Amino acid sequence: MVSHRLTQKLDEEKVFKDPVHRYVHVYDKLIWDLINTSEFQRLRRIRQLGTSYVTFHGAEHSRFNHSLGVYEVMRRILEKFMSRPAWSTEMPGWSEEDRLLCLCAALLHDVGHGPFSHSFEKVFDTDHEEWTRKILLGETQINQVLQQVSADFPHKVNEVIAKTYENKLVVSLISSQIDADRMDYLLRDAYYTGVNYGNFDLERILRVMRPHEEYAVIKYSGMHAVEDYIMSRYQMYWQVYFHPVTRSADVILRKIFKRVKDLYEQGYRFACPPRLLEGFLAGKIELKDYLRLDESTILYYFQMWQEEKDGILADLCDRFINRRLFKYVGFNPSSHMRLSLELEQLFKQAGIDPDYYLEFESSSDLPYDYYRPGEEGERLPIHLLMPDGELRELSQASHIVQSISGKAQTDHKIYFAQDLLEKKEKTYPAVVAKIKQALRDAEKSGVR
Amino acid sequence: MVSHRLTQKLDEEKVFKDPVHRYVHVYDKLIWDLINTSEFQRLRRIRQLGTSYVTFHGAEHSRFNHSLGVYEVMRRILEKFMSRPAWSTEMPGWSEEDRLLCLCAALLHDVGHGPFSHSFEKVFDTDHEEWTRKILLGETQINQVLQQVSADFPHKVNEVIAKTYENKLVVSLISSQIDADRMDYLLRDAYYTGVNYGNFDLERILRVMRPHEEYAVIKYSGMHAVEDYIMSRYQMYWQVYFHPVTRSADVILRKIFKRVKDLYEQGYRFACPPRLLEGFLAGKIELKDYLRLDESTILYYFQMWQEEKDGILADLCDRFINRRLFKYVGFNPSSHMRLSLELEQLFKQAGIDPDYYLEFESSSDLPYDYYRPGEEGERLPIHLLMPDGELRELSQASHIVQSISGKAQTDHKIYFAQDLLEKKEKTYPAVVAKIKQALRDAEKSGVR
Amino acid sequence: MVSHRLTQKLDEEKVFKDPVHRYVHVYDKLIWDLINTSEFQRLRRIRQLGTSYVTFHGAEHSRFNHSLGVYEVMRRILEKFMSRPAWSTEMPGWSEEDRLLCLCAALLHDVGHGPFSHSFEKVFDTDHEEWTRKILLGETQINQVLQQVSADFPHKVNEVIAKTYENKLVVSLISSQIDADRMDYLLRDAYYTGVNYGNFDLERILRVMRPHEEYAVIKYSGMHAVEDYIMSRYQMYWQVYFHPVTRSADVILRKIFKRVKDLYEQGYRFACPPRLLEGFLAGKIELKDYLRLDESTILYYFQMWQEEKDGILADLCDRFINRRLFKYVGFNPSSHMRLSLELEQLFKQAGIDPDYYLEFESSSDLPYDYYRPGEEGERLPIHLLMPDGELRELSQASHIVQSISGKAQTDHKIYFAQDLLEKKEKTYPAVVAKIKQALRDAEKSGVR
Amino acid sequence: MVSHRLTQKLDEEKVFKDPVHRYVHVYDKLIWDLINTSEFQRLRRIRQLGTSYVTFHGAEHSRFNHSLGVYEVMRRILEKFMSRPAWSTEMPGWSEEDRLLCLCAALLHDVGHGPFSHSFEKVFDTDHEEWTRKILLGETQINQVLQQVSADFPHKVNEVIAKTYENKLVVSLISSQIDADRMDYLLRDAYYTGVNYGNFDLERILRVMRPHEEYAVIKYSGMHAVEDYIMSRYQMYWQVYFHPVTRSADVILRKIFKRVKDLYEQGYRFACPPRLLEGFLAGKIELKDYLRLDESTILYYFQMWQEEKDGILADLCDRFINRRLFKYVGFNPSSHMRLSLELEQLFKQAGIDPDYYLEFESSSDLPYDYYRPGEEGERLPIHLLMPDGELRELSQASHIVQSISGKAQTDHKIYFAQDLLEKKEKTYPAVVAKIKQALRDAEKSGVR
Repeated sequence: MVSHRLTQKLDEEKVFKDPVHRYVHVYDKLIWDLINTSEFQRLRRIRQLGTSYVTFHGAEHSRFNHSLGVYEVMRRILEKFMSRPAWSTEMPGWSEEDRLLCLCAALLHDVGHGPFSHSFEKVFDTDHEEWTRKILLGETQINQVLQQVSADFPHKVNEVIAKTYENKLVVSLISSQIDADRMDYLLRDAYYTGVNYGNFDLERILRVMRPHEEYAVIKYSGMHAVEDYIMSRYQMYWQVYFHPVTRSADVILRKIFKRVKDLYEQGYRFACPPRLLEGFLAGKIELKDYLRLDESTILYYFQMWQEEKDGILADLCDRFINRRLFKYVGFNPSSHMRLSLELEQLFKQAGIDPDYYLEFESSSDLPYDYYRPGEEGERLPIHLLMPDGELRELSQASHIVQSISGKAQTDHKIYFAQDLLEKKEKTYPAVVAKIKQALRDAEKSGVR
Repeated sequence: MVSHRLTQKLDEEKVFKDPVHRYVHVYDKLIWDLINTSEFQRLRRIRQLGTSYVTFHGAEHSRFNHSLGVYEVMRRILEKFMSRPAWSTEMPGWSEEDRLLCLCAALLHDVGHGPFSHSFEKVFDTDHEEWTRKILLGETQINQVLQQVSADFPHKVNEVIAKTYENKLVVSLISSQIDADRMDYLLRDAYYTGVNYGNFDLERILRVMRPHEEYAVIKYSGMHAVEDYIMSRYQMYWQVYFHPVTRSADVILRKIFKRVKDLYEQGYRFACPPRLLEGFLAGKIELKDYLRLDESTILYYFQMWQEEKDGILADLCDRFINRRLFKYVGFNPSSHMRLSLELEQLFKQAGIDPDYYLEFESSSDLPYDYYRPGEEGERLPIHLLMPDGELRELSQASHIVQSISGKAQTDHKIYFAQDLLEKKEKTYPAVVAKIKQALRDAEKSGVR
Repeated sequence: MVSHRLTQKLDEEKVFKDPVHRYVHVYDKLIWDLINTSEFQRLRRIRQLGTSYVTFHGAEHSRFNHSLGVYEVMRRILEKFMSRPAWSTEMPGWSEEDRLLCLCAALLHDVGHGPFSHSFEKVFDTDHEEWTRKILLGETQINQVLQQVSADFPHKVNEVIAKTYENKLVVSLISSQIDADRMDYLLRDAYYTGVNYGNFDLERILRVMRPHEEYAVIKYSGMHAVEDYIMSRYQMYWQVYFHPVTRSADVILRKIFKRVKDLYEQGYRFACPPRLLEGFLAGKIELKDYLRLDESTILYYFQMWQEEKDGILADLCDRFINRRLFKYVGFNPSSHMRLSLELEQLFKQAGIDPDYYLEFESSSDLPYDYYRPGEEGERLPIHLLMPDGELRELSQASHIVQSISGKAQTDHKIYFAQDLLEKKEKTYPAVVAKIKQALRDAEKSGVR
Repeated sequence: MVSHRLTQKLDEEKVFKDPVHRYVHVYDKLIWDLINTSEFQRLRRIRQLGTSYVTFHGAEHSRFNHSLGVYEVMRRILEKFMSRPAWSTEMPGWSEEDRLLCLCAALLHDVGHGPFSHSFEKVFDTDHEEWTRKILLGETQINQVLQQVSADFPHKVNEVIAKTYENKLVVSLISSQIDADRMDYLLRDAYYTGVNYGNFDLERILRVMRPHEEYAVIKYSGMHAVEDYIMSRYQMYWQVYFHPVTRSADVILRKIFKRVKDLYEQGYRFACPPRLLEGFLAGKIELKDYLRLDESTILYYFQMWQEEKDGILADLCDRFINRRLFKYVGFNPSSHMRLSLELEQLFKQAGIDPDYYLEFESSSDLPYDYYRPGEEGERLPIHLLMPDGELRELSQASHIVQSISGKAQTDHKIYFAQDLLEKKEKTYPAVVAKIKQALRDAEKSGVR
């Protein structure tokens, strides 16, 4: 059963001034109430691009910022779709509830993210999607607001985000290779970092999108606009998201979390105990505690731990806080095994703990993929609506997209504490010389 | 005596991608080393616009971001000045050291800022300029880097920032009514908030600026560009900096600090003691501790204090963290005294502590001022260089500037916890009715 | 009687890519048909800013360009207005015909403009508003298209543009101190010239506009956005529209037209007769001929006339075509009479015809005006809608607007052919010396 | 022998406000004098994008506009190059004359263009490069100005533009796959049309360009910026330059020129004779006449010819002036021969002259090419400077560039006068039905 909340509009439209979309418009009371929950406000304290700010000083914007943007893109998509004369036949069975599901899922799709989640999740074996589920369904303000629509509405929002909802069109608008999420983050991250790779003609794409049963398709005449969008995404990955300096900060982050975990398991007594992390360390964390974890909390700990008596933890925190990052060289993945064994050995001989001061890091991206049924991580391809009404998969029509289609690109780097090497040079000149030579050789072999 | 550091250039120019100035260019090793000090990196953890992000979600940029921008504007000013054929006569006695002083002062002018300093300083009676002095002259990495130029170089940088340096031109480029600081923050804050009021033609202004003995003047032909800059500043103050919603968050911030101070003085035992604030509370804070204070630290405390047993502190922190702000109405300053006595009385009668839940707040700005010798806070006016070589004070030539010149504008608001009023309505219907009536009357009388 | 045309929509929305508004959207078949008439297409051959391109090389955009923009702004205003829940009470008696009238008037308000009309009209004593009327009501494609709505529809469109239409709200949206026309041209001219003075927040202004009986008012909370718009207008006038170099080209234009007229009256036989101007010269021009006049026609004549045997005409055309402009100095209007007599005399003595090579030119602007009933050229002031529902005239609420309100500013310049003076210097050294001295004195007395 | 002119600087820098580069800066008197010649001013009367304005109403900018932009890009390239510590070894034998040659060639490279040259040259078998040579070397103001540098300087400028100059670095900066010309037009055409495909990070590319003997190379770290530039170019070709509506206007233009030529050859007596075209028609055109040809001249003729008694000429001119364009369908090039024979036959049967009302038009672009020595139109590829100092051809390093490298893409369209078909339908229903069917079939076979 569905309450009257479904159609309750605000007395007066609310707007947020937004640098990317000029204004974000809110008409539904439901959306307004969701924005004002403490779980959504918490996203203000989590940066959208994690550690990218160490490379691009402008990248200080939060997930709150982005989430509003995804909502706005979704709102505009639906406005376009539902103003089409043929919309009801193009979107069979579409209901007012579906509209709200789209908007809520767009707004809330990132609500489970924790601080620096990329690095955090690797060490603590947790998953922001699982937390999103808990926030939507657990005892939260968000759940209460969603409940007012209907008892199973929170559950449906979760299904949309988890891609299991029955109306596939709803799912595809938030999770596909051309969805509201991606369209917002490319534009937004480009704006805040100041690069212009992420620019594409959002308005044009919205105009050539058409609902078509289970997903949105693109009118053939808009193919070049989509090519441009795919290229933007490709460039943003290589120019911004995978920037090697950012990955250096990520490596240090992971090392810190690893050290904390190791120390905790060894029964180390922290001068400043990581109270809000204890749930993770002990393997049983409550939702309430998770929601108090944000970047200010983590940075507070790092700040304090600079004075821990454990030298490695103190040093790593000092590196992160004061941006003393690891240096890097490329390497050839075919020699990964040999190189890592060799360098670990040498680092130990030089008295540097390779567990914390050496890392082989590979970042990989698949800019666009066609449909591969049955394969893991299968991705919904983008379809063009041809003049004759047929559909055609994008990479079949575009040379450029075809050239990057289905081909993952990977960048391989070795990260290490250059300053420690310098320091040890006096005591272990021969070992350090070998290390430096090995790194130089790796770099040479690693050039793409 | 001046070391060779003075002229040491980087082997290769370093750049930062910047959304406002496209790129920030660094050529001097001195500047590069300053940026990499921990005291400067700390500015990444302090937002440029304090609580403005509660109103403009884009306003999440840091003082680090702005400081690089001021440096870049200064670099361009000097590049222009020193490329003029007549520069050595226009800038008599100018030395390479003066150039570096300008750049360092531009980069470091905000280095003493603490978290939410506007509110913080009001409660704890401290002053970021004093801290800047300590950071420049105390035992810091910044001091060490500056010392390499010469023993008294840190002192000189401090003099420039404190406006006491003997070369008045150097001082005026960083502190006047048209200086590198203002020019950067107007553009930058406009960019991040997404408003376009702060836009003016920086490049044009740089082209019409001329060094002229003790300050920079503006060629008469550039008068309209300067008018536009003054108007930008005016608009940014009223549209962004003094936005009543932002001031509501500021009021709550001050109330929290006040509550912490009151509790500390009463000997209250905090479940989570504000260790990094203790120096302030006890009236003797060390530089080392001050430097660990940043927004993540403050937000961590607020996060934790939501569960303090002191109900007022817990409630105020919950308000700040979860953006449950105070409501506001305007009021007429002539009735300030009467109104505040009346409302305080009524709040007490309704069982709401006016010390923490009621505030009369007035924000005032003087958009431009001509020269008033001898008066407190005297400000260097902007001079136009007329075609005949004479100087003319800007407000003498521009109607528009004259219209706002020397006239402070003030906005008066009463902030209060609307939700508490609602809650108390059942128990004290008559009192709350009176309060509401008084607020409505105030609002009516307060319309400008 | 009104035909079904009124509500006929295009099968599919048409769009024009527009740099200022991103896209111009056309939904009504009526608008689409009007755009495709030859009279409207003719606007492609008339520049929006006349001779401004000699100063700002980017200012090459046409009236076609601007007219589409005005239409789009109007479309957005109406979209906002008519989506308000209260719109039918706020716009009493509003009909679908009124909506179309607004759109047509916006699109067609400049359709009567001829080439370089500012200068052209001064010499030939004609008026683009009169031509607009003839185009709307005469035997034109535009008239035919408009007739399809109803027999008196062309007449009504004319009334709207002529400000005599009974629904004053309709009139005010296209002709007031904050109308669709101005809002487009400020943004557009700023974009094409590359200056940023013309920028203001159009979207914000559209959001705070409210229909209010006979005109649109501005919500009080949007006052600063309107201030910013007024200042933009002010700056554009002084920085762009009245640029002294542009006015120099205008002076030459007028001199050419004047020479043609004088020669015609003297019975001079043109090698290349100005066939399309003959109607004007003979004082009886047909609509059909007027519609063939555009900038390419005029420039063709100027091109050819560079070789006319009449030396003055040939020289003036060469100046215009090859941008050999007149120089200028300022002057004090109180000495206008004396100076002009003196200089005319001296020019004649030096053998330079002052009728064609000397001009006193004053440009004047009234940036904003309050209401002055009964006065000539009375202008509808801008009203703010105060929180209590009262209206308040803008200059009563805004210091800045007040400072420029009702005060016309004028710039006075003397234009003259500097190169002729140089040439005559050898023959008439004393006279030319006197002229130069007089000009220097004028300049000195003229500095504002 | 080289005169002192070489190093003569302006007393004060001159600037042009430019929307794309903010400002164009002129320091050399030589450049200033060239801009003020009548041959260069003539470029104001020739649009940069020919007929593109019929599709993108913003595309009204002139070649003057673009030429200043190319000059400015070149100025910045040289500024960067010559500020490098190693510049003199990287640019062996470089002289001040080379710098001026670069600037002059950049400014003047398009000076030979006539009105709508793309279409014009096809019909009249002329070539703007040939005219450039004549303008540089003939009796022109430009030649006089260039002569002041040295007697053979005009000749050298011509060699640079003709790509035969001995210093290959100079040539490559103005004519290669990444040169000042392309970099300006992509940005500029994107700006004026309002599309954002043409955007790329010019400043970044300038920073990663390095002089390297005979050409400029790109530092490997800048590869993605160059990929982005190549993609921009690709998109601009398909989205803007080859837009089928623009090509329709081009087809009509060519048909008009063809009709004029045919009529001239038949001895037709024009009511308005194309005096300025007579040279072309007679096969012997003087430079002086060529320089009077511009778009206003051509448009004047078209305007007048709407009333010629020759029905075809009058109709075609009316189409061009009033934007009554030809419709189009795609076709498969393999059936070109068959289709064209068939349609020509049918058009004749329907009484429509296929010579003027039917056209098979194919536009082709090769977005990037590697080096193919010996082949016609060989193009200098872009080289990356690898970290080890080696050079690597771009398509060897970039998947994306490789995907479009060396592959020309072609778009095939049939243009025809749809309205004539409709008109003839009554008289020749069967023939017109066959034509329509043939066009429908062509369209189906032609979908890429």
